[in-house]
Amino acid sequence: MSVDPYMRGRMNDRKSYVPPFGLGEPLEGGAIGEVVASNADGFAEGDVVLHGLGWREYAVVPAMHAQKVDADGIPESAFLGVLGMPGLTAYVGLLDIAELREGDVVFVSGAAGAVGSLVGQIARERGNYVVGSAGSQQKVDYILDELGFDAAFDYHDGSISERLRHAAPNGIDIYFDNVGGEQFEAAIGALHQHGRIALCGAISSYNNDEKAAVPLIVAIGKRLTMRGFIVRDHGDRREAFLNEVGPWVREGRVKYRETIVDGGVEAAPQAFIDLLRGANTGKMVVRF
Amino acid sequence: MSVDPYMRGRMNDRKSYVPPFGLGEPLEGGAIGEVVASNADGFAEGDVVLHGLGWREYAVVPAMHAQKVDADGIPESAFLGVLGMPGLTAYVGLLDIAELREGDVVFVSGAAGAVGSLVGQIARERGNYVVGSAGSQQKVDYILDELGFDAAFDYHDGSISERLRHAAPNGIDIYFDNVGGEQFEAAIGALHQHGRIALCGAISSYNNDEKAAVPLIVAIGKRLTMRGFIVRDHGDRREAFLNEVGPWVREGRVKYRETIVDGGVEAAPQAFIDLLRGANTGKMVVRF
Repeated sequence: MSVDPYMRGRMNDRKSYVPPFGLGEPLEGGAIGEVVASNADGFAEGDVVLHGLGWREYAVVPAMHAQKVDADGIPESAFLGVLGMPGLTAYVGLLDIAELREGDVVFVSGAAGAVGSLVGQIARERGNYVVGSAGSQQKVDYILDELGFDAAFDYHDGSISERLRHAAPNGIDIYFDNVGGEQFEAAIGALHQHGRIALCGAISSYNNDEKAAVPLIVAIGKRLTMRGFIVRDHGDRREAFLNEVGPWVREGRVKYRETIVDGGVEAAPQAFIDLLRGANTGKMVVRF
Repeated sequence: MSVDPYMRGRMNDRKSYVPPFGLGEPLEGGAIGEVVASNADGFAEGDVVLHGLGWREYAVVPAMHAQKVDADGIPESAFLGVLGMPGLTAYVGLLDIAELREGDVVFVSGAAGAVGSLVGQIARERGNYVVGSAGSQQKVDYILDELGFDAAFDYHDGSISERLRHAAPNGIDIYFDNVGGEQFEAAIGALHQHGRIALCGAISSYNNDEKAAVPLIVAIGKRLTMRGFIVRDHGDRREAFLNEVGPWVREGRVKYRETIVDGGVEAAPQAFIDLLRGANTGKMVVRF
């Protein structure tokens, strides 16, 4: 079962792109399950399926909301992460929202996370120069040594603008934003003319209403495009995504990490809190 | 000769999309002039031309930087305003940057100005619901009675968010931003999902480094697109613009006002200061 940062937003009692969780009702989230009984054509006992009713041990899932998983040598949990919703988020955000082009320099925050690590690797596989940021030296080492980014820095380590200038001395073309806050503001300073920001997440403000300070004169002068998106709108890209990234995962060219927590639904709340604190590396998964 | 808000930026000694004015050198700006001598094919004494070397009485203009004006019953000064750079700015910003669609509700700030007044009228001519804001009741009356906007308000008049909600009770799809500041923030609150902001000007911050506070969570949840642009990049749209808007001006369907200041180059600095203070209605022009 998957725990994801966006779930924090559903714990506020306010209008958002997904309705808040209901009081007295189970939470929900992405999960991989085994079919134990089926009345639906095309699903048989023992099939492995991806569905959206996690945070419980058994669920009645309408056939139209379940997708059979054809793992073909890939661990099933990958379909919650690198080949699941976070993976598609990276793919759509980088290619469709930020419109990656040949020669673009890409900066991604939260670069050790489930989304950020794939953003950088897709860009790298396509031949782009990639800079990542994360919250510890250990994560920075992972980004450089295992994920193969061209440069990376710890955002706690002095001025973010200076660190970014050091990592990308000639500036950047794309900022893939997973965190908001100061990194967003530093990226605006580093972006080239016609730069693009994919607004994917803002984990630094999930627990408050922090706003990013956008110098409009700079945004106009640089002809910047800032665009928010929600992966849910882009299900039509899933096939292209799996066709391009699936083989990279199978061949081991794209790396991913999972932080797997055992203990089922009882362990899930703490896993979620740890996720928001950044205690994970890569996709956070709870095993039942 | 034209005086324009963007010139303020050229008075700061810093990198921008146009270089700063040089010390000891004349300013420059759009102007309509009469050819007094010509060595170039296609230009003869007496021709009326549009060029970029205003703020002086005589200029040597390379033929490639001059465009003959074929007024055909339209006052020549219109080619500095409603059919000139501000007009093309409105056209490109509304149609190409904000991607106006059928049924969109459009909000434009600085709606009595040279750009804003045309933004609203193009949207109106295309059948869209249009809301404008401006800085006085007199301007609001002009927007409603002469320009034919559906609603308008004075941004000094209480909470901008409330005024906007009153003017567009079902929200907006496009915000054409000429001013930045509080109106920008109110517009973000009023925008529908997939809303678009054309970042055209930020007159409220031309004299300082004010930043707009963007709630990233809202920008993501609403899938907003915010895009800065500079009209200079869009010269290829000039013909389409003149073909569509020229007839509306000639037929009197599109209205425009000019604040014409007499006195030539000596009167120009005060005209420019008055422009930044909002003392104009419509395009500010200095007559020699």
